[in-house]
Amino acid sequence: MIITVDREFGSGGRELGKRLSDALKMPCYDDEIIEIIAKECGLDVNYVAHMSENRIQMAYPLTVGRRLSIPSEVVQQSIKVEIAQNKLFERLSQQGDCVIVGRCADVTLAHLHPFRIFVYADRASKIARCQERAPEQENLPPAQLERKMRSIDRNRAKQHKMASNIPWGAKEGYEVCINTTDREIKSLIPALAEYVKNWFLHTQIAVG
Amino acid sequence: MIITVDREFGSGGRELGKRLSDALKMPCYDDEIIEIIAKECGLDVNYVAHMSENRIQMAYPLTVGRRLSIPSEVVQQSIKVEIAQNKLFERLSQQGDCVIVGRCADVTLAHLHPFRIFVYADRASKIARCQERAPEQENLPPAQLERKMRSIDRNRAKQHKMASNIPWGAKEGYEVCINTTDREIKSLIPALAEYVKNWFLHTQIAVG
Repeated sequence: MIITVDREFGSGGRELGKRLSDALKMPCYDDEIIEIIAKECGLDVNYVAHMSENRIQMAYPLTVGRRLSIPSEVVQQSIKVEIAQNKLFERLSQQGDCVIVGRCADVTLAHLHPFRIFVYADRASKIARCQERAPEQENLPPAQLERKMRSIDRNRAKQHKMASNIPWGAKEGYEVCINTTDREIKSLIPALAEYVKNWFLHTQIAVG
Repeated sequence: MIITVDREFGSGGRELGKRLSDALKMPCYDDEIIEIIAKECGLDVNYVAHMSENRIQMAYPLTVGRRLSIPSEVVQQSIKVEIAQNKLFERLSQQGDCVIVGRCADVTLAHLHPFRIFVYADRASKIARCQERAPEQENLPPAQLERKMRSIDRNRAKQHKMASNIPWGAKEGYEVCINTTDREIKSLIPALAEYVKNWFLHTQIAVG
């Protein structure tokens, strides 16, 4: 049972992944991925996080003329991080059932037929969720928050596009798409966990 | 509890609607809608079915010059069917919990906050499902079936576009989108029914 969770920023996808993994009694990998990679590559966690979020610009400078000025060492490190991440996904999935949040795991692990979830919500709901969760000193006004949301999602879409022909968030790339508008994530979990369990059960039956 | 089911042709959405309504012990309205309207408007069932499927062309001839030749009686009847359908939806929903399949009920009944489901599947799976279900004399070759599928879905999308700003099948217009590729519809129902029940339960709690 490999479950991948992709999500719009502010939709509660990360919480959904964590709670789903708890309900199904399996580990959830989210920021832990960055930490493991940083350790394995001998790089700083924040640096890896930044690279992971900006890997297009970093790893593929030759396709964009104006980025040729990125030092080749950075490019090498970025490719190293990319490879480490993909290897890590494989390793985690071989260790057993797990939930992986984001980072194009749905595409990287496609050959293992994961259950792919996409989480989304309307604009107002995402802004409200972000404001609720933000540490006090980081509370951005809605307009600024929306710009941030859009920029992060645009980046996720770009990364997905490099990995797959199916656009990020296009429903055909997922087993279910879940609208969390005005919902407490917690309330969605028990039935979703059942749905996922059944899905794998019937896959096994079909395979024999 | 009003549940609407919209679906790609061949995805099993109609079966899903029926089975879900059985699981939740509520009526499901699908072709019954056509039958009731035909009776109420004093028109032939097949005629109403045809009109319901082609209401754009029928009901709005003035927007398209070349259709001005449609007799005004047909236009009147088409508008009559449209009005009868919307009134029927209201009546059915006031009678109590129900599932309504297709016919833009998600948009017409938006003010009642229905749980909106969209059902989809990949091309091969839809073709296989159609072939399985078709009466022997109607078994079309895949290419022809695909043309039919596309044409019906295009028509559904057009009808939806007339009723709503959110495109047909765009996930933001639904509470969940369900991929039925290689799935037996039956196997998805118990958990989906739970999900829907919980959703309404938590809506009530939120409202107070």
